[in-house]
Amino acid sequence: MSEHAPAPGRVDRESRLAHGDHEALRLWLRLLTCSSLVEASVRSQLRRDFNCTLPRFDLMSQLERHPEGLRMGELSRRMMVTGGNVTGIADQLVKEGLVTREAPPDDRRAFVVKLTPAGRKAFLRMAGAHEAWVARLFAGLPAVERRQLHALLAKLKDSVTASARSEAA
Amino acid sequence: MSEHAPAPGRVDRESRLAHGDHEALRLWLRLLTCSSLVEASVRSQLRRDFNCTLPRFDLMSQLERHPEGLRMGELSRRMMVTGGNVTGIADQLVKEGLVTREAPPDDRRAFVVKLTPAGRKAFLRMAGAHEAWVARLFAGLPAVERRQLHALLAKLKDSVTASARSEAA
Repeated sequence: MSEHAPAPGRVDRESRLAHGDHEALRLWLRLLTCSSLVEASVRSQLRRDFNCTLPRFDLMSQLERHPEGLRMGELSRRMMVTGGNVTGIADQLVKEGLVTREAPPDDRRAFVVKLTPAGRKAFLRMAGAHEAWVARLFAGLPAVERRQLHALLAKLKDSVTASARSEAA
Repeated sequence: MSEHAPAPGRVDRESRLAHGDHEALRLWLRLLTCSSLVEASVRSQLRRDFNCTLPRFDLMSQLERHPEGLRMGELSRRMMVTGGNVTGIADQLVKEGLVTREAPPDDRRAFVVKLTPAGRKAFLRMAGAHEAWVARLFAGLPAVERRQLHALLAKLKDSVTASARSEAA
């Protein structure tokens, strides 16, 4: 993909390098494709069965893991999917009685967002369906291969984190 | 994650099922995490080194693979990342002389978008850097594990595609 071809005398080493780079790129595109396919499927099933967007589901999922509530900033940072308007989604959930938003006594400027019991119930109903959809999407992989994939992705996560950290340093 | 616990007499089979579901969900979250980390890193490097957004890079990359040009609708469908405004990006690239947009003689209502030679040159410069960044992000995985990961993701892609197709049917 580089616009500068290697000089003929240096082909061997550079073409091996270019080949490795190209492999990593193909691996990245495949990873992105898988991730996009699963995301699109989950998105359309959430819409169809619960009239819910993925960012809204994601936001409720973060709150369900933190019964003590989360500050708005922390909630934004924890979101797994991008592109949702966290404040707008929270406003709507408050209006529907699924979430409360209150300023804690020790910091009146910070808002803490929490699921209400009705919000938790609504989320758990969706979460059960979501888990079953994901299981079906991944069902073509035998359990042993799912475990291998999980382990390789753990290594990849470490690799990416280490590389991104050294990049930022 | 389901709100209905299995009845005691049926625990065995259902808890195995629930365990498998939960494993698939963990695998999905790990896949999404890896994909998001790589995407965020690439996004910030494109911004820093080329003042370019990821959707703009993605759009130019689709055009580079299709020297004959793509219709706007087809271009939108081929985008790998979501959230970009394809028309807005194309407008801007036309303004910068990196892309042409012309109605073909046989269908005056359809616009065909193409890279100009300057656009292709600008893209290839970014693509070379991009490939090297991705190689660095994945460098923590030995070549043999990268190949395993590639093969497992191919199976996953098939699994997801087959499941999404039967879902839609």
